[in-house]
Amino acid sequence: MSFKIGLLGLGTVGTGTAEILLSPEGRHPLVQELEIYRVGVRDLSKPRDVQISKEILTTDLESIATDPEVDIVVELLGGLEPARSLILKAIAHGKHVVTANKAVISRFAEEIYDAANEKGVYVMLEAAVGGGIPIIQPLKQTLGVNRIQAITGIVNGTTNYILTRMQNEGADFADVLADAQKLGYAEADPTADVEGLDAADKIAILASLAYGGRIKLEEVYHEGISKVGAADIAYAEKLGFVIKLLAVAKQMTVAPNEPELLQVRVHPTLVPKQHPLASVSGVYNAIFVEGDPIGQVMFYGRGAGAGPTASAVVSDILNIASILKIISQSPVPSPQSPVPNLHPLLACTHQHYCQIAPMEELVTRFYARFLTNDSPGVIGHLGTSFGNYGVSLESVVQTGFRGDLAEIVVVTHDVREGNFRQALAEIRALEAVDSIASLLRVL
Amino acid sequence: MSFKIGLLGLGTVGTGTAEILLSPEGRHPLVQELEIYRVGVRDLSKPRDVQISKEILTTDLESIATDPEVDIVVELLGGLEPARSLILKAIAHGKHVVTANKAVISRFAEEIYDAANEKGVYVMLEAAVGGGIPIIQPLKQTLGVNRIQAITGIVNGTTNYILTRMQNEGADFADVLADAQKLGYAEADPTADVEGLDAADKIAILASLAYGGRIKLEEVYHEGISKVGAADIAYAEKLGFVIKLLAVAKQMTVAPNEPELLQVRVHPTLVPKQHPLASVSGVYNAIFVEGDPIGQVMFYGRGAGAGPTASAVVSDILNIASILKIISQSPVPSPQSPVPNLHPLLACTHQHYCQIAPMEELVTRFYARFLTNDSPGVIGHLGTSFGNYGVSLESVVQTGFRGDLAEIVVVTHDVREGNFRQALAEIRALEAVDSIASLLRVL
Repeated sequence: MSFKIGLLGLGTVGTGTAEILLSPEGRHPLVQELEIYRVGVRDLSKPRDVQISKEILTTDLESIATDPEVDIVVELLGGLEPARSLILKAIAHGKHVVTANKAVISRFAEEIYDAANEKGVYVMLEAAVGGGIPIIQPLKQTLGVNRIQAITGIVNGTTNYILTRMQNEGADFADVLADAQKLGYAEADPTADVEGLDAADKIAILASLAYGGRIKLEEVYHEGISKVGAADIAYAEKLGFVIKLLAVAKQMTVAPNEPELLQVRVHPTLVPKQHPLASVSGVYNAIFVEGDPIGQVMFYGRGAGAGPTASAVVSDILNIASILKIISQSPVPSPQSPVPNLHPLLACTHQHYCQIAPMEELVTRFYARFLTNDSPGVIGHLGTSFGNYGVSLESVVQTGFRGDLAEIVVVTHDVREGNFRQALAEIRALEAVDSIASLLRVL
Repeated sequence: MSFKIGLLGLGTVGTGTAEILLSPEGRHPLVQELEIYRVGVRDLSKPRDVQISKEILTTDLESIATDPEVDIVVELLGGLEPARSLILKAIAHGKHVVTANKAVISRFAEEIYDAANEKGVYVMLEAAVGGGIPIIQPLKQTLGVNRIQAITGIVNGTTNYILTRMQNEGADFADVLADAQKLGYAEADPTADVEGLDAADKIAILASLAYGGRIKLEEVYHEGISKVGAADIAYAEKLGFVIKLLAVAKQMTVAPNEPELLQVRVHPTLVPKQHPLASVSGVYNAIFVEGDPIGQVMFYGRGAGAGPTASAVVSDILNIASILKIISQSPVPSPQSPVPNLHPLLACTHQHYCQIAPMEELVTRFYARFLTNDSPGVIGHLGTSFGNYGVSLESVVQTGFRGDLAEIVVVTHDVREGNFRQALAEIRALEAVDSIASLLRVL
């Protein structure tokens, strides 16, 4: 039995995928039964790092998505279009789909999974989050028996690389970013990474799997790392924290007898040094999952790169091929008969949307850095304003001077974000307060 | 559609499993379709922490394994017998099996999987290694497309708890063990844990999955932590290491043009502090996997306990139930027709045995602590003996005195274990050398 793969895209990940498929020795025996049947590329004449016969290359991507011989379409184009249309076209033609495209899945999950369920085909996306780290399949297959309390992830390698270097070198964001761009760790336009958009796509996908509901991407709060200063990293260090860009999905009760809401958010966060996520450095990713009754588990590895991502892509292909093998004894569904049963752990079975909690309902600790006049009683004024809104302080450190201004760092106890924001508004209006230099949440 | 579960054992993990099955809200919808049909216990009159109707309890375990109504037998008895016989009996009666029993699987995999393949049933064992940590399913389903280079795990919570406390408190092994026994973290007879037997069972299972071959348990080298001294932990700390009981499976080439051999071994090891395994503390487990092309991935979580282990057990049940659902459209195999195709990633497909490398072929760094007379030239004598067998030293530290004796600690560069042992034999015969106080491998 052999399974015919139509590969859309032969860039970094496409090449890595082809390399695995073309060298099955030492891998699971089923890899031998996967055949690269056609490959869609933009430019036929481009030299390739992988030995693929010219005859199976084509620039007509749609002809792959509709080819009656193709069993599984592997979309590795990236970007929204033509990726989305080709995925839908492949589904419409009864093909299973494997994709690494977090942007398409986080935006068009409804359209894609409704179409896939109607056709009885799989859309698999292990490579969309965490590169090679097995996280999608464990969430679907192993962790699904748990009530997931929270998912907390470092899911963007570029920002973790930048923050790690800022921490190790005491350097400023802009300098490290420029260097990361030179080294190829950050894109020429770094917005999607540094402003948390990429991480928002990924946490939307993870939240959807963990909580069994769809997520509207526009409801995912995201805040990037461009405003994190070298000073904040240094203060965090002194207070026993490292700063990480975290993507969080967490259930919360806003009011008794009301349904639980879901927080889905991305923001730089002070992480206690002893937390397992604190030691995840450089381009590594990690996803920390808390559930009942499993407790805490963490998945760690390279979040990007040809090899890790291709590993995830081929594992999805293998999973689909396995299922095709076990149902091959059953009669092929005729046009009159119903579509085949889909594997309940691999298919998307939910259709409702998760209710997302507004950010002001979030209850968390905060770190804030104030620049103030060096006048007596400033800390007292801050304390009074915080007290007015029920914000209690865990520590207040007057740490030094920045030019003429005194620098005061506070860490609060758990507080409702709405209350904390009200206190800040009052503080901002205080005469002695020059500015709020930074504001970060604490894990 | 509902799946009838026959539960063998209602101890800690059995109770945890029943609790998940009896409270499906907030879990994967398929959990609702799992029915606890019968439960086998030793004592009917024992009070239970979980609400199970008396009518489904029985002390006749065999009647569950042979009950024609039961779809999936869940063996949570532990120990070799009657667990092994009941698993085989259940398979013979066409039932799928879920087990948390590392001892049975690591010893009787051949017998059990041959029987299961003949009958076309699954034997699932996510709970046998790493408690709740998803590691078996990722190895089977996500990492299988990789060529696995090495698996390095902290897979025994008791020894990791003891070593962590020895490190934090500077305490001796015997004292911490006694306290751990009082607190319930170590058994009254701690042999299986502290001598590395439990870890050997587990690495045999992981190696078998990662390298697609069977492992003879008696070929797994194991060495426990009872000889690790407070002094070694302190020296390791100074040299930039922590000491962990590691279970390792790793491919190696002994000679060019000869087939690769597999190292499978358990021993206390100096782990560099910056290695991700170094910060895995207390009762936590972690499994670090290196593969081509995925690179490094790590799985972290609680390695034992009712909740985590039950999570793994129920996830296996769910996986089997999922497959039963998708093949339910196909005609039930008649006595004449072949057994159903098994899912190629979930079934055991290998039958050969892995060739295990003898320990003397291992190439690794060593840490050794010598007690010697305080005479000039001792370090020179040691160095000469090491040199005679091609052992080159990374560092030599004369660290102080223990009574009248000088204490010398060396760390070698990579060396063939056989050569290192020959050098040690020569050193042991030196007049100036009192004893080799400890000998540990370095990661």
